[in-house]
Amino acid sequence: MQKEKRVAIIGGDARYLPLIHTLNKTNEINLELIGFDQVEQSYTGVKQSTLEELKPEQLDAVILPITGIDDKGYAEAVFSKQELQLTKDWFKRLPSHCLVFTGIANQTLLDSVKIKGNKLIKLMERNDVAIYNSIPTAEGAIMLAIQHTDITIHQSEVFVYGFGRVGKTTASAFKGLGAKVTVVSKDETDIARAFEQGYTVCHLSESIKLIENCHVLVNTIPAKVINKPILEKMKSDAIVIDLASKPGGTDFDFAKARGIHAIHALGLPGLVAPKTAGEILAFQIQKFIFSS
Amino acid sequence: MQKEKRVAIIGGDARYLPLIHTLNKTNEINLELIGFDQVEQSYTGVKQSTLEELKPEQLDAVILPITGIDDKGYAEAVFSKQELQLTKDWFKRLPSHCLVFTGIANQTLLDSVKIKGNKLIKLMERNDVAIYNSIPTAEGAIMLAIQHTDITIHQSEVFVYGFGRVGKTTASAFKGLGAKVTVVSKDETDIARAFEQGYTVCHLSESIKLIENCHVLVNTIPAKVINKPILEKMKSDAIVIDLASKPGGTDFDFAKARGIHAIHALGLPGLVAPKTAGEILAFQIQKFIFSS
Repeated sequence: MQKEKRVAIIGGDARYLPLIHTLNKTNEINLELIGFDQVEQSYTGVKQSTLEELKPEQLDAVILPITGIDDKGYAEAVFSKQELQLTKDWFKRLPSHCLVFTGIANQTLLDSVKIKGNKLIKLMERNDVAIYNSIPTAEGAIMLAIQHTDITIHQSEVFVYGFGRVGKTTASAFKGLGAKVTVVSKDETDIARAFEQGYTVCHLSESIKLIENCHVLVNTIPAKVINKPILEKMKSDAIVIDLASKPGGTDFDFAKARGIHAIHALGLPGLVAPKTAGEILAFQIQKFIFSS
Repeated sequence: MQKEKRVAIIGGDARYLPLIHTLNKTNEINLELIGFDQVEQSYTGVKQSTLEELKPEQLDAVILPITGIDDKGYAEAVFSKQELQLTKDWFKRLPSHCLVFTGIANQTLLDSVKIKGNKLIKLMERNDVAIYNSIPTAEGAIMLAIQHTDITIHQSEVFVYGFGRVGKTTASAFKGLGAKVTVVSKDETDIARAFEQGYTVCHLSESIKLIENCHVLVNTIPAKVINKPILEKMKSDAIVIDLASKPGGTDFDFAKARGIHAIHALGLPGLVAPKTAGEILAFQIQKFIFSS
């Protein structure tokens, strides 16, 4: 039998509730929550603490918010009014084997974990997490396309810009509903793979020649690729769903002026499938805790 | 070249706007609209008339509302305040070759077309129309499932009750997004076909043994099959999407008491894809007009 692991969750958002629920199902994890005092739900066997009560010396893992900590060490807690400041002195008290989980990391966090040499796992920068998260993202895009067009996805012309982690999943989801999907990329390897998978393919530099047929454009490329020339050629009742992180890849001002409905859809996993999104994080965290 | 056909549309709802648009693209159709005086859009070359101005003697086809006419001959016109009464005397003035299109037919309509022996086409009772319409219906069910669950469709357990025109399309759409679909039917032929297509299959009388795994239940069977025993076994966070026409196949009162979210989703094609829904009707109508 595995030794019980002591895990503290310090701050977090709505995705952390299913995460807590899933981790709590594992008998070998002893959970302590900081920054969840306003959650109405209670979890059997889970201790709610304050940062003062928590003993970092005893921890095997710390789970920080997806956003990590800010420059002054503050961790964001959506479900608490407590101020959760994790100073360098606090990190000094962690045992060196203690894992530190975050979504993303700034320099302050990178410096803080260096003090005792703690392993930092940046969940959102991991390829596997990005791929798992791409599933609810693609379903969110499907939902938006059904809601905001007056045609069926089936037999519609869908252009997916980018064939990376999110692009692959999105193209597959639309194809699964019978759409005619064109994959647009400037990467010849991606174009070859998309071709192999049965999509119509098009080099980024050539997409302007085909875009007038498009009903639904999904962008996943984090660069201004859905620009004025592209938008000018599009049907006015086509829609643009931009999944690329801020500031997105679409000239939203021009789209608006042109009368094209363009949606910058961020955070879809938490929106359409918070439970799955939380579980994705929980499974990753468990994998690390029990393999370390 | 084909002779120009004179077609009158008398009443109708939102689906009729894309229908008018599509029929109007055909040069060989001369359209006359009655009951669309409140539509802001105008159609080039389409005559807006009143029932008094219309000359039934000259018509090759009449398109009635999806609902047909009522017992007194009134045709429903969503876009007009005109009273559109089609009396038996009015039907008597139609040439005998004139086609009469409706969605469904009551006895009054059946009697009226008999007078001159006009061919009546009940669009909504046709298998092909029901299959085409099942596509936007399935997409509507997908949209509801994404909106009303906190998990992804991908890898979720979806139970589709019935494997007829709508059931087949719905099962396929959910499978296309990566759901684990179980088809429930009491028809051994349908069970065999569902099995061949790779679904998990289950006889209606046995579904109670598996239903506790269900995340999304889609019913297409027009009989009370989603009854108290089934609902009692379901997870409380599962959802029921009932696509069967009124009164549906779900014990909605018991579902509510049990805390299960059950949605009676009717008229999805007009809701999620009015343009496609209108075009489906237009293509059918054209087929008849030009083959007669």
